[in-house]
Amino acid sequence: MAKFISRRRFTIEWGHCDPAGIVFNSRFFEFFDWGTWILFEAALGVKPSDLAAAFGIAGLPLVDAGARFLAPARFGDMVELTSHVREFRRSSFDVEHRLLIGAVVAVEGHETRVWAARDPADPSKMKSQPIPAEVTARFHA
Amino acid sequence: MAKFISRRRFTIEWGHCDPAGIVFNSRFFEFFDWGTWILFEAALGVKPSDLAAAFGIAGLPLVDAGARFLAPARFGDMVELTSHVREFRRSSFDVEHRLLIGAVVAVEGHETRVWAARDPADPSKMKSQPIPAEVTARFHA
Amino acid sequence: MAKFISRRRFTIEWGHCDPAGIVFNSRFFEFFDWGTWILFEAALGVKPSDLAAAFGIAGLPLVDAGARFLAPARFGDMVELTSHVREFRRSSFDVEHRLLIGAVVAVEGHETRVWAARDPADPSKMKSQPIPAEVTARFHA
Amino acid sequence: MAKFISRRRFTIEWGHCDPAGIVFNSRFFEFFDWGTWILFEAALGVKPSDLAAAFGIAGLPLVDAGARFLAPARFGDMVELTSHVREFRRSSFDVEHRLLIGAVVAVEGHETRVWAARDPADPSKMKSQPIPAEVTARFHA
Repeated sequence: MAKFISRRRFTIEWGHCDPAGIVFNSRFFEFFDWGTWILFEAALGVKPSDLAAAFGIAGLPLVDAGARFLAPARFGDMVELTSHVREFRRSSFDVEHRLLIGAVVAVEGHETRVWAARDPADPSKMKSQPIPAEVTARFHA
Repeated sequence: MAKFISRRRFTIEWGHCDPAGIVFNSRFFEFFDWGTWILFEAALGVKPSDLAAAFGIAGLPLVDAGARFLAPARFGDMVELTSHVREFRRSSFDVEHRLLIGAVVAVEGHETRVWAARDPADPSKMKSQPIPAEVTARFHA
Repeated sequence: MAKFISRRRFTIEWGHCDPAGIVFNSRFFEFFDWGTWILFEAALGVKPSDLAAAFGIAGLPLVDAGARFLAPARFGDMVELTSHVREFRRSSFDVEHRLLIGAVVAVEGHETRVWAARDPADPSKMKSQPIPAEVTARFHA
Repeated sequence: MAKFISRRRFTIEWGHCDPAGIVFNSRFFEFFDWGTWILFEAALGVKPSDLAAAFGIAGLPLVDAGARFLAPARFGDMVELTSHVREFRRSSFDVEHRLLIGAVVAVEGHETRVWAARDPADPSKMKSQPIPAEVTARFHA
């Protein structure tokens, strides 16, 4: 239902690639992390580094991530990363990412993250919090 | 059915961790890659860098990967990565990884990889190949 | 003497930073690598991934790199990387990099690289080659 | 004068290497960071993650780093990283690193780090502190 999609274009760098000449898989999960921050910045109008303070949370800890690698991405490829929230639940949400090379979907990824604050009972731990309605509303604009 | 399990103990490094003081998620996928190479070396008795030449393949390209993050891993944690093949199919297979901190499973991961050679029709591409019976047999020893 | 300067603006990502909340040092060397490719693309008008083929070389192997860390860079900082060749020698050259946060130089870096082709006597090795005058001329435009 | 040398043996992983099939340069700086932590743990008998608390410091911020790349390191190479303090000054020190492949020095590196605490006047900043004599003494044992 969420319609807000962020896009980021960037170039595949030499250091992203492995001896097979293609992007090493862990890099895509780094790209997905970029995508989620960009998406929240675009939807909420808050710099990623200010997000926690703005909403009284400690962060958006990741509890699940995955990817399907459909086509290789190579050094010099101009790619586009699109990210959107597939579903908001009470205190967690799913982000879907796609990495496109031209019109080809090279990688499909997903992340499940939690809206989390410091646990008052033990500040070294995180505790999930209800996602404010004002946050989810922004993603349906 | 596959019973061969590889184990690697290592320490979480400063550079593995993010500003939350825990391992940044993409690093776990790098660890899983280590795990698969170690597993194949242990099962087949062939150095990872010799695997392709020994079996006439070009590599073990990854087509799917995922992880569940159950507990954080922190700088200085001594962890153990266990890896085993969950299933061999005709030309692809699933590897399961677990990252343990003491007796706690901190991360569960999986990879799906393909047994692949250069495509004779287009050497810039990879083509899946049947996994030799001598390979799968070693994982059931 | 070389005057051609390339510039790239980008944002410091969460995954670039360590538990101290600042960019982990190895990332700056990754940024410098970006800088050199961008600089050569800007000066020569050739995509980085086409550079080797366009000039009959195998690459620009790095033989020396270093950095001075003057001020920390943090998650969300908008930074600018400037890169220029400080000196061309017969078959090697020095690139200087600066990472700026606003008007502050946060990091100064340098790389020494070699203009190298495959060694005809042993294609597994690289052999330095004279840098073509047409290449160096483009950096003084 | 400092004689304490730490050693770490490890294998070059697939994900450490770039499309040239050799270790991407930024990885060596990550290895040097490992080396410094290991060295301090070996000399001081304190786990890296406990070092700051044990000595009332905030960390060992890096102010300078560099490397000379003498020979390539490749996937599967068994390497040894040796690290030692070349010089202690009042509040900073130089660490030298060597990465060996067998008897060959593949990379020589150095880091300059500061013994630093939180600045009482501004806890968001670091302030150098005199290195305790009990610390430097351990490196000459």
